Amino acid sequence: MRVLLAGGAGYIGAHTAVSLLDAGHDVVLLDDLSGTSAIAADRIETITGRTAPLVVGDASDDAVVEEVFTAYGPIDAIIHLAAFKAVGESTQKPLEYYSNNVDTTFALLRVGLAHGIRSFVFSSTGTVYSDPADLPFTEESTTSIDLSNAYSKSKRINEVVLADVARVNPDLNVTVLRYFNPVGAHPSGLIGEDPAGIPNNLMPFVARVAVGKLDRIGVFGDDYDTPDGTGLRDYIHVVDLAEGHVTALEKAEPGYAVYNLGTGRPVSVLELIASFEKAVGRELPKRILARRPGDVAATYCDPAKAARELGWVSRLTIDDSCRDYWNWQSKNPDGYATV
Amino acid sequence: MRVLLAGGAGYIGAHTAVSLLDAGHDVVLLDDLSGTSAIAADRIETITGRTAPLVVGDASDDAVVEEVFTAYGPIDAIIHLAAFKAVGESTQKPLEYYSNNVDTTFALLRVGLAHGIRSFVFSSTGTVYSDPADLPFTEESTTSIDLSNAYSKSKRINEVVLADVARVNPDLNVTVLRYFNPVGAHPSGLIGEDPAGIPNNLMPFVARVAVGKLDRIGVFGDDYDTPDGTGLRDYIHVVDLAEGHVTALEKAEPGYAVYNLGTGRPVSVLELIASFEKAVGRELPKRILARRPGDVAATYCDPAKAARELGWVSRLTIDDSCRDYWNWQSKNPDGYATV
Repeated sequence: MRVLLAGGAGYIGAHTAVSLLDAGHDVVLLDDLSGTSAIAADRIETITGRTAPLVVGDASDDAVVEEVFTAYGPIDAIIHLAAFKAVGESTQKPLEYYSNNVDTTFALLRVGLAHGIRSFVFSSTGTVYSDPADLPFTEESTTSIDLSNAYSKSKRINEVVLADVARVNPDLNVTVLRYFNPVGAHPSGLIGEDPAGIPNNLMPFVARVAVGKLDRIGVFGDDYDTPDGTGLRDYIHVVDLAEGHVTALEKAEPGYAVYNLGTGRPVSVLELIASFEKAVGRELPKRILARRPGDVAATYCDPAKAARELGWVSRLTIDDSCRDYWNWQSKNPDGYATV
Repeated sequence: MRVLLAGGAGYIGAHTAVSLLDAGHDVVLLDDLSGTSAIAADRIETITGRTAPLVVGDASDDAVVEEVFTAYGPIDAIIHLAAFKAVGESTQKPLEYYSNNVDTTFALLRVGLAHGIRSFVFSSTGTVYSDPADLPFTEESTTSIDLSNAYSKSKRINEVVLADVARVNPDLNVTVLRYFNPVGAHPSGLIGEDPAGIPNNLMPFVARVAVGKLDRIGVFGDDYDTPDGTGLRDYIHVVDLAEGHVTALEKAEPGYAVYNLGTGRPVSVLELIASFEKAVGRELPKRILARRPGDVAATYCDPAKAARELGWVSRLTIDDSCRDYWNWQSKNPDGYATV
C-alpha cells in the first residue's frame, strides 16, 4: 500500500512511518514541521534504509493535499496524525486547536475521497471517555463532547464527522484509534518525542529532569484513591502504537471501526518514575504537589477488541518504554536540535 | 451598531436584517446565495427604506470576510446565520455540512476577533436537546453530540467551539440562540422562506400544496402520545425570531450565553394545517402516513430565560404565522424566482 502519513514527522508519525516502511508499504510524509523537525524524516530513512519523501505543508489546505496526490499518487490510504496536541495550550488557544485539528480532517477527506482512497485511519484519544465508572474503558464506554480541554474535544468532533462520512462512503474503511498514553522511543535512539517548552506529560518531564534540563519532577497529587495514591495511566510504547496503525491498515474492512490502543495495565506515577530511575541508574529529584485541575485518578483501557479483531497486542513494558525513552533523550538532550 | 450579518439574504437573515435596520443599526449582508437570491437584499431595502450592502461570497473564506471588514468596517458585531440547513441533505452530504457550517464559524471568528468585534451571535437549534424527559427544554436541559443528523451535530459542534472561544476572550459577548421551528414571513409579503426542492418542514410543504405546487400534505404519524396523535412543535414566527436577534445584540454583555427562542406553546401538525386552511380559506388535501425516522413526538421550549434576561417574548401566534406565510407564498408562488 502507498500511504499518505499526515503529521508523519511527529512523535507518533515518525514511529508509524518506520513500522509502515519496515512492513513493506510506501509512505509519503506530510508535515508542517510546527511541532517537529525535518531531521525526523532523515532519521526514518536511516533506520529503515528506505526513502519516504517529506512534503512540508499544511494538511488543512486542500491545495497542499492535492499536490501530494498529484506528485506521489496513486495513494491507497491516509493516516491522519496532523494535529496540535498540547493539552494545556489548547485551553488557551481553542480556536487555533479546533480549526487546525478539524480542518486537517476536512481537507484530507475531501481530497482523499476525490482520489478514491480506500482507508482513512485517524488518531484519536482515550480522553474521549467521560465516565470513570466505566473503567477499564472499552470502545462502548460512554463518550462525551463536554471534555476538560479543547484538544480532546477536537478529537471527539473528528470522530463524529468520520462516523458520518463512513456511513455515506460504504466502500471506505474508516478506523479511529483511541490512544492511551504514548511513551518510549524507537530502540535506535534516532527518533523520539521532542516537545516544545516544558512538557505537559509525565515521561518527557521525567526525562528532562534526568538529562538536567529541569530541576525536579512534580508529582501532582498522592492522595488519589489508587494503590499508591498517585494517578494511574495506561502507558503504551510508541513502537507498539505504531504497529497498531499498520495492523489497522492491513486488516481494515469497509465501514467505521474504533479501537483502543493501550496495554490495559495501569501504571502509577510513582511506578513510572521508579522505572525511569532504573533506566537512568540513579534516583531523580521529585516532590509531591497538589492535584492538577482536570486530572483524573485513573484512566486505562480494555484493549481486547484490537486483539480480537486486528490481532494487535502491546508487547513492550513500562521498563522498555523508560529504557528507550532515556536512550533517545540521553543521545539527543535537545531533541532534534541536538548537534 | 454596525453588524455583519452572515447568511443575511436567507430566510432568517432577511428578516433579521429588517429588524436590525428598523431598530437603527447598520447592516452589511454577506451571503453566497447558495440557498437564496440577491432579490432578498432588494426587498430588505424596499421594506426598510434603508440600504444594506450585499457582499456575495463564502463566509468560510477568511479573505472574503476580511474584505467585508476592509470595505465596510468598523464592524461591531457579527450575527452568524450562514449555514447549510437541509436536515435530510445533511444526512447524505455530511462532510459538506460539517465543513461549511463549522468553517464559517472559524473564519468569522478569526477575522472578527482580529478586528476587535464586541459581539458574536450564533444561530443554533433546539434540536441539540436530546432527552425528551426534559420537556419543555430549558437552556440547562441535556444536550448531546449524538444527534440524528449532521445539521444538528454541526450546530452543537459550533456551540462547543464558541463556549471555549468566549472563555479566552472575556470582553467578547457570545450569544447562542437556539431556534425552535421558524415559520411565517414578513407581513409585507416581500420576503419569506424560499426552500429549494421539496420542503422538509411542515409549513413550507403545506404552503406548496396550497399554492398548487404539491398535491397533498403528508402527516407523518398520528399515533404519537400527544393530544391528537400528531407531533407537537414550537413554531416561532420569523419576525419574533428576528426581534430576538436584535434584543440579544442590544442587551448583550461579555461572556457566553445561550437562549431558547420559541413560544413555549406546542402546536400539533393537525392544528397547524387547520390554521393554514383558515388563512387560505379552504380545506387542503392531506393524508396520514407512517412516522418518519428521526422524528420525535414533541419538542418545545421554556422561553423564560430570554424573557427574564433579554426582555424578549414571542408576540405572534400560529394564525399570524400561517396568514403571513400564505401572504408571501401566494404573492410569490415561485419564491424569489417569481417574476
